[in-house]
Amino acid sequence: MFEESVIRKAESVKASSGVLYNCTAAQKNTLLKALNKRLLSETPAIIAANKIDLANAEKAGISKVLLDRLALNEKRIQQMIDGVKDVIKLPDPVGKVFDKIRRPNGLVVEKMRVPLGAIGIIYEARPNVTIDASVLCLKSGNAVLLRGGSEALYSNKALVEIIKLALKDVKLPSGCVEFIDTPDRQAVVVMLKQDKYLDVIIPRGSQQLIRYIQENSSVPVIAHGEGNCHVFVDSSANLKNAGDIVFNAKVQRPSVCNAAEKLLVHERIAAEFLPKVAARLRQAGVEIRGDETAISILPEIKRADESDWYKEYLDLIIAVKVVKNITEAIHHINHFGSHHSDAIVTGTKSNGERFLREVDSAAVYVNASTRFTDGYEFGLGAEIGISTQKLHARGPMGLVELTSTKFIVHGKGQVRK
Amino acid sequence: MFEESVIRKAESVKASSGVLYNCTAAQKNTLLKALNKRLLSETPAIIAANKIDLANAEKAGISKVLLDRLALNEKRIQQMIDGVKDVIKLPDPVGKVFDKIRRPNGLVVEKMRVPLGAIGIIYEARPNVTIDASVLCLKSGNAVLLRGGSEALYSNKALVEIIKLALKDVKLPSGCVEFIDTPDRQAVVVMLKQDKYLDVIIPRGSQQLIRYIQENSSVPVIAHGEGNCHVFVDSSANLKNAGDIVFNAKVQRPSVCNAAEKLLVHERIAAEFLPKVAARLRQAGVEIRGDETAISILPEIKRADESDWYKEYLDLIIAVKVVKNITEAIHHINHFGSHHSDAIVTGTKSNGERFLREVDSAAVYVNASTRFTDGYEFGLGAEIGISTQKLHARGPMGLVELTSTKFIVHGKGQVRK
Repeated sequence: MFEESVIRKAESVKASSGVLYNCTAAQKNTLLKALNKRLLSETPAIIAANKIDLANAEKAGISKVLLDRLALNEKRIQQMIDGVKDVIKLPDPVGKVFDKIRRPNGLVVEKMRVPLGAIGIIYEARPNVTIDASVLCLKSGNAVLLRGGSEALYSNKALVEIIKLALKDVKLPSGCVEFIDTPDRQAVVVMLKQDKYLDVIIPRGSQQLIRYIQENSSVPVIAHGEGNCHVFVDSSANLKNAGDIVFNAKVQRPSVCNAAEKLLVHERIAAEFLPKVAARLRQAGVEIRGDETAISILPEIKRADESDWYKEYLDLIIAVKVVKNITEAIHHINHFGSHHSDAIVTGTKSNGERFLREVDSAAVYVNASTRFTDGYEFGLGAEIGISTQKLHARGPMGLVELTSTKFIVHGKGQVRK
Repeated sequence: MFEESVIRKAESVKASSGVLYNCTAAQKNTLLKALNKRLLSETPAIIAANKIDLANAEKAGISKVLLDRLALNEKRIQQMIDGVKDVIKLPDPVGKVFDKIRRPNGLVVEKMRVPLGAIGIIYEARPNVTIDASVLCLKSGNAVLLRGGSEALYSNKALVEIIKLALKDVKLPSGCVEFIDTPDRQAVVVMLKQDKYLDVIIPRGSQQLIRYIQENSSVPVIAHGEGNCHVFVDSSANLKNAGDIVFNAKVQRPSVCNAAEKLLVHERIAAEFLPKVAARLRQAGVEIRGDETAISILPEIKRADESDWYKEYLDLIIAVKVVKNITEAIHHINHFGSHHSDAIVTGTKSNGERFLREVDSAAVYVNASTRFTDGYEFGLGAEIGISTQKLHARGPMGLVELTSTKFIVHGKGQVRK
């Protein structure tokens, strides 16, 4: 029964994507402005719907942290509105023509940027994603099929209703945004098989959710993987900078994917650097683990075992390894890392360039914190997620990453010999 | 048992990809030159191995056409060698730095082009793919796990042995190219689950094979879909050009994906154009089917039914529909087409531009034959396939499409606030 409903919605999104495909930037911005008007005027309805979710969540005994993530109030709805305003200001990537080649037979071959088409978004608790993700998809000319977490069901339904009102206000098809409201997990399974209608699925949530989707989807997936991020402090590093970067990368927000989980230190400066940085980290409540050499310098720390080097703690824990040189550091990062974000702190230009070239991660840094891996910080203006796969998009994904291209060819009657 | 062997080979390819990641263009070209030397000196061994495949195929009662596709001789091996020479001449896309942004905090964010890593290729009969695909992967810095058709098993094994000799000649790891020699179909199933080691799988073969792979792979897939290609002849078309383009697109090589399967004709010129083009097509042995209006002009043709409009014939058959205007043509193509290659023949510039913008296909043409959708014809220098999906690569795929990017960031000690 819900199977039919999911398929019908996927079909509706696909059909509506044809209309969005040909919308101008002005039309799309008019839609987003209408959405903001509606978000403002319907704020009480959103908060009322959110109250139902909060009450259900409390009954289900959900943690305070998750309750806070779920909660919507006037301030948070204003933040959504501000976010939509930011997207209105961003340039529309669709329609750009580039990579022109004139062939010997006179054909002119170019590429044109076009919407991906129909995008599936599967996400968990936070209801603001309903607006954030929809707005990025719509601005880049894509229709979107949403599947949110069951905890936020009523909030999400209210927000989607508001998007549909805005679509109606500007006479665009209501199917540009559809929402799967069946709490049954099987609805996701059905969604993953709609490759006839969906061009891509972007999952946002736990590693288990993402893993499940990758393994079961016949629709192409852009996945956001783990962040086991490293900072390597080279022998020529400015140790003041190094300390600041390690501290920032570990402590500023330990629960996110671009936080540092590992510290590699060149053996020549380990004895000088480690005690200082360890004191600072410990003051911030960070648990330090280390290899044998690190322990010889910091005797009070716990021994890191093999599994530590692979782990994304997402917590105030860091593992320290003393390495012989940059070669060992690069090998360690490429072998044990998750290819998300890794940094070198060095005073040697050639070592910086080598690190950038040889470390195979979505974002690689010289003398800066790994915490900058983010669409806003990289100047993309917005972010639908951070891809850790190599296909289509790698690193923070903005509007351009929600588009595809097509070849456009101008001829004068040419035929193939 | 073969499961372990497939996993071991995927692992070996992944490990070797790290070495290729850092090879210079000069090193990669030296490898390709060594390969060409080996292909020449080992020609007798290749032909001997191919004789076993041919004998087995004949015993199995394989058709003459397939036997011809399978056969290798000195001339065909020389063609492989010439193909490798062409790839040597192509620029190496790896290492290119672009899209530089300077952020307000002084961070300099750029993108660097890097190899994808480890690529799986699953292909059918033709043994030359073993060399062609490997060479494109190696030149773009990728290691490759090959799974060829069982008919060409001995030929493929001989060719892979030669690649491994060349790798040894230039002291690169033998695991840069691995070949799955288990005829058991289950070996493919195991390969499709090696997302730990493979970054992408590119299938080349029948639609059934590709479909199976898309539905069962946890590794991202770049798929080559069907080509239900259209030529639309507008009312302002130069009818001489239109006739030439329709004839070329249908007749020059009807068995390939960029051949035209459908002819849409503006009602205003249908009575003049259709009898002429029909006579020419019929002389070339083309069966013509049509809608009611087409039949009123060409009474001898067969009625096309609904399913005809969706079909990729890959044969000397074409279905003709008379349309009211360009709007109907575009709707028909976007609805019934396969989004591969579609052309308009028109004398009206604005209609040409509208067609290019609104037809959602991998390649869209004004006044040229759809048969040009091809890596060589588009100036990419080579082609590993034609993608009909929207993610990562769309249309003919050359060396650049076998790469990914990473963000590289230069800082001076910046930390996130």
